[in-house]
Amino acid sequence: MCAVTLEDIRQARRRIDGSVHRTPVLTSRRLDELAGARLFFKCENLQATGSFKARGALNTVRSLDPAARPRGVVTHSSGNHAAAVSWAAALEGLPATVVMPRTANAFKMAAVRRYGGRIVTCEPTHAAREATAERLRQETGASLVHPFNDERVMAGQGTAALELLEEVPDLDAVVAPCGGGGLLAATATVARALRPGLLVLGVEPAGAADTIASLAAGVRQAVAQPASVADGLLALVGDLTFPVIQARVDRVVAVTDGEIRAAMRRLLDILKLVVEPAGSVGYAAVAEGRLSLGGQRVGILLSGGNVDLDAPPWQP
Amino acid sequence: MCAVTLEDIRQARRRIDGSVHRTPVLTSRRLDELAGARLFFKCENLQATGSFKARGALNTVRSLDPAARPRGVVTHSSGNHAAAVSWAAALEGLPATVVMPRTANAFKMAAVRRYGGRIVTCEPTHAAREATAERLRQETGASLVHPFNDERVMAGQGTAALELLEEVPDLDAVVAPCGGGGLLAATATVARALRPGLLVLGVEPAGAADTIASLAAGVRQAVAQPASVADGLLALVGDLTFPVIQARVDRVVAVTDGEIRAAMRRLLDILKLVVEPAGSVGYAAVAEGRLSLGGQRVGILLSGGNVDLDAPPWQP
Repeated sequence: MCAVTLEDIRQARRRIDGSVHRTPVLTSRRLDELAGARLFFKCENLQATGSFKARGALNTVRSLDPAARPRGVVTHSSGNHAAAVSWAAALEGLPATVVMPRTANAFKMAAVRRYGGRIVTCEPTHAAREATAERLRQETGASLVHPFNDERVMAGQGTAALELLEEVPDLDAVVAPCGGGGLLAATATVARALRPGLLVLGVEPAGAADTIASLAAGVRQAVAQPASVADGLLALVGDLTFPVIQARVDRVVAVTDGEIRAAMRRLLDILKLVVEPAGSVGYAAVAEGRLSLGGQRVGILLSGGNVDLDAPPWQP
Repeated sequence: MCAVTLEDIRQARRRIDGSVHRTPVLTSRRLDELAGARLFFKCENLQATGSFKARGALNTVRSLDPAARPRGVVTHSSGNHAAAVSWAAALEGLPATVVMPRTANAFKMAAVRRYGGRIVTCEPTHAAREATAERLRQETGASLVHPFNDERVMAGQGTAALELLEEVPDLDAVVAPCGGGGLLAATATVARALRPGLLVLGVEPAGAADTIASLAAGVRQAVAQPASVADGLLALVGDLTFPVIQARVDRVVAVTDGEIRAAMRRLLDILKLVVEPAGSVGYAAVAEGRLSLGGQRVGILLSGGNVDLDAPPWQP
């Protein structure tokens, strides 16, 4: 199994400290009353680049072999990881190339360009993305920074849960979104090491519930046509992240797009926070009572806040 | 002149500590770049009840004479103060009556009711509001909690700036909204006492710029028909708050409704925060370069986040 340990995550924190925000943990009496539980929101929507992805990207860039640094980094992603890798590379003065499907929306491309990333477009298939990134890696000698299936990336993502558990040590449960599984695997690693009795829960969209299917089958199971408003959670769980989730996560549940949109609206209304669809699934599951956490103290990772305000995805 | 001192504000903090949030101070490299200054946002939109008004209301309710407590409190307000007084009274187990114009919108009435306040409607004039509150005070023996023209209220509001200056001691300037002037007067009191060289700046909407007119005239000047999207800032500056502002504030400037709407949109987009129009005027003034703060370290009070999401007031 993937060897990511608490010590890797602590080292990642030392590497990225001072360059990422220590995001606040917010509480709301009204949201507690509505959920019938005591909720602690770790606000990674307020992180640099608008998502937790800044943590793993910067840890990876700062872990590169000195000889490899001048050749920069390459990644394939249509979302927050693309912006985060561009940001982390710029911080270190390295070039970044991002492979994006030619259908990626202008809003997401703009975020990559804002941080100085070079965009190379490809056909909108997973195979084309991986092949294009691999070709660029070979041509340029750039280092691949995978969105989740990489121990350095996972170690960086784990620093969010590390901060949460330090700030609120007496949680009963922690809830994280699950796409490729990097954040969930890292959160579970921190939780198991620091608080063995803590319940670790994952949430994925009903339209991309490959992790739930994979856990039931015991091996990774792709979903034929993953689709959800939570476009950050469509990836198939990774071959490095899945065994960690199998071993260290108590349960993964699904929420519908309608539930996600309603959760976003309530977070906007009551918590005064813009949380993107992928970042809202944890709260959606708690709000819908999907996790049976009545009366408990629950940490919820709000993983990102990047929303195209020209097409707001929350419940109108 | 009004005798509100740093010591009053410190006492207020001891009174309300643990019942109000110590709100986070957020920063954003992108917003810094756009403004050409280093910005520190004190997020009172994340305060209990959705605004800083919780601080002054709770300090006042907890300062009541024990004999007066059972008769509860009364106030007149159509906005955040109404909700804050209802919340503070409920926290102390006292009854609260709020006089609201019969034209007040359903969204604001719902906030008062949610916290258990009793609403008494009146004609939508300032005179009717004051007369109705005074009648209720005499009939019921309830204590009046004025929205700003009260030293206990001002002392509570000052705790926001106290926290900001403790967290970021090396600011060059601090910027606060100005309606009735309670928050601005209190902020200036803290700043003058702790950091005499700190620039203290106020911002009001161009459509309700009575404080600017009053400072120019040397006496309070009402505006004939105050009107702005920043409905929390329409009140005439108070006779207790105005002399404090005259003595302790360096400058007050105005921003247009268009500038306010653009500022809200940018705070939503980049800072991921819902900030209401009245809460956005400080950032609007900085973003428009209205305060000549290039290269400086600027604290900005985001005073509230209560927005009717069915009619979002930000720039579309």
